[in-house]
Amino acid sequence: MVPHLTTALTGPLKELESRILRAQPKIEHWFRSQWLKHDAPFYASVDLRNAGFKLAPVDTNLFPGGFNNLNQTFRPLAVQAATVAVEKICPEARGVLLIPENHTRNSFYLQNVAALHSILRQAGLNVRIGSLLPELEAPMQLELPDGQNLLLEPVQRRGNRLHLGDDFNPCTVLLNNDLSGGVPSVLQGVEQALLPPTYAGWATRRKTGHFAAYDGVADEFAQLISIDPWLINPYFSHVGGVDFQERAGEEVLADKVSDLLARIRTKYQEYGIEQQPYVVVKADAGTYGMGVMTVKDPSEVVGLNRKQRNKMSVIKEGMEVHDVIVQEGVHTFETVNEAVAEPVVYMLDHFVIGGFYRVHTGRGADENLNAPGMHFVPLAFEKPCNAPECDEAPDCPPNRFYSYGVVARLALLAAARELETMAEEHGE
Amino acid sequence: MVPHLTTALTGPLKELESRILRAQPKIEHWFRSQWLKHDAPFYASVDLRNAGFKLAPVDTNLFPGGFNNLNQTFRPLAVQAATVAVEKICPEARGVLLIPENHTRNSFYLQNVAALHSILRQAGLNVRIGSLLPELEAPMQLELPDGQNLLLEPVQRRGNRLHLGDDFNPCTVLLNNDLSGGVPSVLQGVEQALLPPTYAGWATRRKTGHFAAYDGVADEFAQLISIDPWLINPYFSHVGGVDFQERAGEEVLADKVSDLLARIRTKYQEYGIEQQPYVVVKADAGTYGMGVMTVKDPSEVVGLNRKQRNKMSVIKEGMEVHDVIVQEGVHTFETVNEAVAEPVVYMLDHFVIGGFYRVHTGRGADENLNAPGMHFVPLAFEKPCNAPECDEAPDCPPNRFYSYGVVARLALLAAARELETMAEEHGE
Repeated sequence: MVPHLTTALTGPLKELESRILRAQPKIEHWFRSQWLKHDAPFYASVDLRNAGFKLAPVDTNLFPGGFNNLNQTFRPLAVQAATVAVEKICPEARGVLLIPENHTRNSFYLQNVAALHSILRQAGLNVRIGSLLPELEAPMQLELPDGQNLLLEPVQRRGNRLHLGDDFNPCTVLLNNDLSGGVPSVLQGVEQALLPPTYAGWATRRKTGHFAAYDGVADEFAQLISIDPWLINPYFSHVGGVDFQERAGEEVLADKVSDLLARIRTKYQEYGIEQQPYVVVKADAGTYGMGVMTVKDPSEVVGLNRKQRNKMSVIKEGMEVHDVIVQEGVHTFETVNEAVAEPVVYMLDHFVIGGFYRVHTGRGADENLNAPGMHFVPLAFEKPCNAPECDEAPDCPPNRFYSYGVVARLALLAAARELETMAEEHGE
Repeated sequence: MVPHLTTALTGPLKELESRILRAQPKIEHWFRSQWLKHDAPFYASVDLRNAGFKLAPVDTNLFPGGFNNLNQTFRPLAVQAATVAVEKICPEARGVLLIPENHTRNSFYLQNVAALHSILRQAGLNVRIGSLLPELEAPMQLELPDGQNLLLEPVQRRGNRLHLGDDFNPCTVLLNNDLSGGVPSVLQGVEQALLPPTYAGWATRRKTGHFAAYDGVADEFAQLISIDPWLINPYFSHVGGVDFQERAGEEVLADKVSDLLARIRTKYQEYGIEQQPYVVVKADAGTYGMGVMTVKDPSEVVGLNRKQRNKMSVIKEGMEVHDVIVQEGVHTFETVNEAVAEPVVYMLDHFVIGGFYRVHTGRGADENLNAPGMHFVPLAFEKPCNAPECDEAPDCPPNRFYSYGVVARLALLAAARELETMAEEHGE
């Protein structure tokens, strides 16, 4: 699959990409020094938006799905990265317990679980899949559309250890479940290493915490390569005490939206950008594109109708929304066959292992592509983002992918720092 | 390029490969624990022979050429492995000085230098090429057959540091020169990190030292997966005090050849192998296939004619041969389009990054394929050897490549232990 990238790129992005390519040795040197100071999360995916004048992360997922969407040709790269991750975290690892989301009918998600299982197995680990489904009492075999089978086994707790059956006592537990509904008791106080830590789940993690850490990373990086940090960083604000059902906090939210739109407008003027500024209002603890709305005028968040209120007030696992992030909207200027395309970059440990485009024909350049019911077409990147072709133009695909890999790793570094702060708060 | 592997394999190898595949988690766990105790060399290539009943390394090169023969598709794997190697050895590395062999007209070798240069550059390092050519006084541009250019610059010594020109003060020196003629004074007492260390050069390294270390590794590994270590280990003996020109030591050599042939014969009987045993006599400090002869009967090493004596008595850089290794010959049973094929596996740090077949139509299954003037056809492996496809038969190519990667890593581990022993001897 060769993506035909029709990008309406002029001026600034090419300039940004050129600058990133020219500074490659400096950038990699800087990343090396950062990874000596900060531990990368076990894995992550980062949603990027490429606006032509700007390239920025808009979401960083610490329990990534979608490994099945990556280019199969580069599987060995994922296997090598997983090997390094296991060596660092737990060289003694033989048995890994993989705990997925409680989906048994979402075959897209199950194919992701199968891909992760296979990567870890190819890295030489014994991997079995433990389910937190309360009604699961015996192992359940699931057949995937491609004919593969997955065996879900009920997770058992014995003392402070998790087991499967009588014969699987893993030394590491890999969570692919974002714990949106809180940390279930079976996972509390477990003595095995849990990756990522349970406090990285959405019951405790906040998007604003991530982007606050990203502010610091983006500033340092921008200084390193002498660019305006705004070119890689979307503005954001936090709004607390919101209750969409009770119409509480609407005015405060409208004020923050107004402030943010004004700041974006100033920047657009500075760079001569003629598009209309917009912001995205999202649940601060959200995922799966639930509780998300695109806003071009502050009045849009006041006096929401019932449907809008319902949409915004509850996210996954029925959690209520009281805190929101208002984030600068970054236009998507990449298209694949005339459809809007949003790049998603995957990392294992601190290595970029590939990515894909979410391609969606029914949506505009300023809309969220990770919405519920969204039927995106995954288009695997042709190249895995970690190796630029040095002597070519910045807009040839391998070099664009290198820039994507750099910005995704900035978000990964922000996540590493964010988790350090959370570890202190959680006394770990 | 898809290699058509016509392998005349029956019985034991399939059994050996199955055993390796079944034990994959145990094997990877064991390697992880070994790499905690031993530092892998920066890079290595291992020549393997696949005899059907036996799969074994016959040579381990710590200054590998031939990176240009690897499958380009898997370049990102090499880049990722180089990143890990640099992080471990010298995270501060920005500038790397690559010192190649003194060849300026061997375009095959120069393409290897270009490939290495490119891998390191893609890993984000500033790389320049410094030549030890005594007559080189100014930078020399070399054009390669594919249109690439290489700039060779004279290595300069200032105090205890190596420089290029006025502006390149590298922190790491990567040797791709095997120092067959001894360590030149310009490299002695250099304060920068030299990789591999100069004592790994053929002026001090001995094949018998490597295979003595391999004996230990092969025994441990054989115990781990419950096999006869002979299935992965060629017998060998050392013979010192040889002078082919003076016909000194011929009788001792003939006796050792006779002993080794007898030991092989016993094993062949044990396994019901009907081929004729043979040994290979090589310079213990040799490289480039110089000073090598294939012997089926002890009488062949007594009373050599002038041509044979000349061939055996001098290796690269005119060094005289006084020590030889007599190594069990391992038949090559792999063929590509009816030509004999010998696999070569490449590693960066402790990662297998690919390999290729030396394919040669003019030679028999018991002959050395790395001989002077040998025009082998490099055939890149289809897959990079690090990730078996778990549910397939042992003789499908990705799984065979996994076995190759395992045996090559055993030789790499032997090299790591061999270098530790040499470091002690050299007081480092």
